Amino acid sequence: MKSFRKELWFNTSSRREYSNITHDIEKCILESGVSDGLCLVNAMHITASVYINDAESGLIQDYDDWLEKLAPHEPISHYRHNNTGEDNGDAHLKRQVMGREVVVAITGGRLDFGPWEQIFYAEFDGRRRKRVLVKIIGE
Amino acid sequence: MKSFRKELWFNTSSRREYSNITHDIEKCILESGVSDGLCLVNAMHITASVYINDAESGLIQDYDDWLEKLAPHEPISHYRHNNTGEDNGDAHLKRQVMGREVVVAITGGRLDFGPWEQIFYAEFDGRRRKRVLVKIIGE
Amino acid sequence: MKSFRKELWFNTSSRREYSNITHDIEKCILESGVSDGLCLVNAMHITASVYINDAESGLIQDYDDWLEKLAPHEPISHYRHNNTGEDNGDAHLKRQVMGREVVVAITGGRLDFGPWEQIFYAEFDGRRRKRVLVKIIGE
Repeated sequence: MKSFRKELWFNTSSRREYSNITHDIEKCILESGVSDGLCLVNAMHITASVYINDAESGLIQDYDDWLEKLAPHEPISHYRHNNTGEDNGDAHLKRQVMGREVVVAITGGRLDFGPWEQIFYAEFDGRRRKRVLVKIIGE
Repeated sequence: MKSFRKELWFNTSSRREYSNITHDIEKCILESGVSDGLCLVNAMHITASVYINDAESGLIQDYDDWLEKLAPHEPISHYRHNNTGEDNGDAHLKRQVMGREVVVAITGGRLDFGPWEQIFYAEFDGRRRKRVLVKIIGE
Repeated sequence: MKSFRKELWFNTSSRREYSNITHDIEKCILESGVSDGLCLVNAMHITASVYINDAESGLIQDYDDWLEKLAPHEPISHYRHNNTGEDNGDAHLKRQVMGREVVVAITGGRLDFGPWEQIFYAEFDGRRRKRVLVKIIGE
């Protein structure tokens, strides 16, 4: 069994941002030398998500509006978590809707994907350095 | 390490539909010859989900009502994504609530499941051929 | 390839409860002898979740309030599932928001975690014995 580990670093310029990281994951798979296995991609921070969906700018704006409706950023005082001095209570909730991680199949040394699947890093409390973990196992 | 890959194909007769695929996954596990490992089951399309819950028809209707409340299909114009000519903006949101994938344990050559766990394919934009990927690794 | 399996049992005193199980998972990893691999942690029941987020009491209350708003427990008659004699229709919905499982990386014989990641068992229909499955594969 082979294994591979890499961290991807992000520092978004806005509080919320959605980055297509599919190409970074493809590079990790090539680098790992694994041709058949599983690849875990997870946010290492608890106010960000990794998810798979369409790379279409309208949809990304739809997600952002919808998440803001399900768990609004303001009023800050709405969240007990913000009594700790944080202002990111909403980000912890948004991240649960979009998920912490994806597990993707590797077949023939490639991402085993459907036609429109793309891997995104979703930041809900950015403007600081945060990480994604890529862990691959297989042969 | 053994690995196994199979695609399951669906073509639902209605826009939204929930199909119990537990038996198909059990057959894949038998066919793989893996007795201890992990099995990934994921939608290969971005307007469908794979999830685990109860095979109870009332609950399935509850899910459908609830998802339609969280992310209504209409008005179509509500979603920027639909400006591309699609009418499935809601389906991309519903899929995020229910999830893209499940990872299940294989022990003793069987699905290692609790008493009521069943694997479902949830279609939110059907009436066309779409796929689920089953990827198994183990020994 | 090594594999390891263990069940963790819970019997919460209230209907909804959030338990930090990170230390239990760390013990499983040590016991498994796996230094590089993947660890699946999943609820074996369909009205409970395993998720990763912050061990902060205000946030946990925020989650509980938010889930109760997204899928209220009452009126019981609101859920078709409850026509079966159950009163846990809401719990099946709450569990979908928070997720069934997490997959975590093992590196150097330890949980490969970011600074604030903690694993929680979230019970939405407790006051009875229920289980979580830990399945580890690797080397």
